Amino acid sequence: MITLSIDCMGGDHGPTVTLPACRQFLDSHPDAQLLLVGLPASLSAFAHPRAKMVFASEVVGMDDPVEVAMRKKKDSSMRVAIQQVKDGVAAAAVSAGNTGALMALSRYLLKTVDGIDRPAFAASIPNAKGDSTTVLDVGANVDCTPEHLLQFAVMGSALVSVLKGNDNPSVGLLNIGEEVIKGNENIKKSAQLLRTASLTGDLNFFGNVEGNDIFKGTTEIVVCDGFVGNVALKAGEGVATMIVDLLKVEFSRNIFTKIGAIVAYPVLSALKKRVDYRRYNGAPLLGLRGLVLKSHGSADTFGFEQALNRAYDAARNDLLEKVRVRIAHAAPLIAVVPLTQEIPDSVFASSAIPAATPN
Amino acid sequence: MITLSIDCMGGDHGPTVTLPACRQFLDSHPDAQLLLVGLPASLSAFAHPRAKMVFASEVVGMDDPVEVAMRKKKDSSMRVAIQQVKDGVAAAAVSAGNTGALMALSRYLLKTVDGIDRPAFAASIPNAKGDSTTVLDVGANVDCTPEHLLQFAVMGSALVSVLKGNDNPSVGLLNIGEEVIKGNENIKKSAQLLRTASLTGDLNFFGNVEGNDIFKGTTEIVVCDGFVGNVALKAGEGVATMIVDLLKVEFSRNIFTKIGAIVAYPVLSALKKRVDYRRYNGAPLLGLRGLVLKSHGSADTFGFEQALNRAYDAARNDLLEKVRVRIAHAAPLIAVVPLTQEIPDSVFASSAIPAATPN
Repeated sequence: MITLSIDCMGGDHGPTVTLPACRQFLDSHPDAQLLLVGLPASLSAFAHPRAKMVFASEVVGMDDPVEVAMRKKKDSSMRVAIQQVKDGVAAAAVSAGNTGALMALSRYLLKTVDGIDRPAFAASIPNAKGDSTTVLDVGANVDCTPEHLLQFAVMGSALVSVLKGNDNPSVGLLNIGEEVIKGNENIKKSAQLLRTASLTGDLNFFGNVEGNDIFKGTTEIVVCDGFVGNVALKAGEGVATMIVDLLKVEFSRNIFTKIGAIVAYPVLSALKKRVDYRRYNGAPLLGLRGLVLKSHGSADTFGFEQALNRAYDAARNDLLEKVRVRIAHAAPLIAVVPLTQEIPDSVFASSAIPAATPN
Repeated sequence: MITLSIDCMGGDHGPTVTLPACRQFLDSHPDAQLLLVGLPASLSAFAHPRAKMVFASEVVGMDDPVEVAMRKKKDSSMRVAIQQVKDGVAAAAVSAGNTGALMALSRYLLKTVDGIDRPAFAASIPNAKGDSTTVLDVGANVDCTPEHLLQFAVMGSALVSVLKGNDNPSVGLLNIGEEVIKGNENIKKSAQLLRTASLTGDLNFFGNVEGNDIFKGTTEIVVCDGFVGNVALKAGEGVATMIVDLLKVEFSRNIFTKIGAIVAYPVLSALKKRVDYRRYNGAPLLGLRGLVLKSHGSADTFGFEQALNRAYDAARNDLLEKVRVRIAHAAPLIAVVPLTQEIPDSVFASSAIPAATPN
């Protein structure tokens, strides 16, 4: 039996989306059970033989600063959901809530694995090769040093090698040109560091890639800071949505285009499925001693259910332990440079506070 | 007669693309003439009654550092093309060459207008509203301060108000969430600054927007640093290309899908046209005392011709002077904060060097 803990309050839509998704997930996974975490009033109407309610008295708002989630709302549904993983009661936690808070709480409660300074969200993006490109980070870290990007490269390689059985997946550094002289100082240093690490043979660094390479599938993994990764991901979703909507409008324009739509239906339906980013929802937060997955905040029932499916697959395949072993194997690689000692950005300043004042 | 100067050597394909594009442009614009700048050997085969050759002895490589373009290759085709604008011989220069070099050379030769610290490339991106979203910067500046982003907002507003006759176009700040607490420190400060500037009534600041909002058309203008803007732009192109290619493959799968393709042809062809980013090629470099447009480095003949068309339209409509007047009008707005005194990143350190050692 696989047990997942679900932050039912998170996301733009909260229980109106998460609860129906949980029901569908339970109905299609007879060997799974769910710990539904949320306010008692929000969960009261739900009942399922394999669902157990875990009550929380607070909710982290989508616009709550990290400090509030960490210091003030100590009984939030998000925190309680992660706590289930820490306590070994659940194999993975899933939340569609506030990304910054999820990152900080997960890091504080679960701790990072040896050698990893910062966890990162790894998204799977459909590419033109009919496969997916793993992009990290897509939102956990808004400012990254070259050392962090090296860690992302190691974690991404570990994830892809476990998921796809490819021992030496290629890693691209997201930049604004393929040439080595491109980018800001931070990116140039990152490229140098990745190139150096690549010489050990444990990392397969391809070089710089550009935004379109994510969708071409030029490399299996693309590393970037969470700000850039998030923008790239959402820009891609934006274009896919625009095109699918445009096709709908164009095909319903008149009787001839409507006939065209009927004849072209199989192709259009294949396309819609292929570029439906909801199918790829659910990004694991890599680098922690416990499994946490982030759903898109705006996910609908179908999308949130996919995040649950991914959490289930990850738990069932023991992704956490396999990735940990891979990262441990690459420890000498990461040690090419010392980990950053200082904690430079506000997210980490915040997440460090409770460590000094434990509750 | 409108005269444009063309860096015929720039881009991934050089004269094999630029020269055929120039011919097509000349044939469709009887009131235009071109100054074709390049190596004598590369231009020798071309002849047209309204084309004049301007020879240069060097070419800026796509992977040349800015320093090389600025200090070593003083007779490059790119530099000579911009010089034609400075000398008042051409109304605008167009290049598909090295972005960093084009930015630095343009800034050095043409100088910025009063109140503008850094020029920015403004791209027009097709959106779901059937209109276009103006995004800046898309590659000139890889590190930006909040003050720079405010200047981009002012320049973008000036451009859109001139092009679309809308006096108060809305401006979004590209971020990883709509909530005010999102983003890194730099972005939070930028949002504050834009909000303050907006109170004067001269700037219509909408708030934070996300990557998908560029394609939704949530705001008429989106401001961001050139690294993020470039990645968003290319990610969008990547998805559009992937979908169009996917449709081609799917529709040629068997006899039934081929019939579907014939029936659906008008719709597919409308879609292809709509998302063909080559049609939007040619980003003006705003904030200078002369007009320079950047073509995508990988542009084909059709794409490069669009950049020429845009340069022609801009020159014909006196875009430069109109935008300058708008920026001058907003001078008190930019003066909300003093311009950055220091020159923090390598691009500007490089472009400043020749000022001390003029040729």
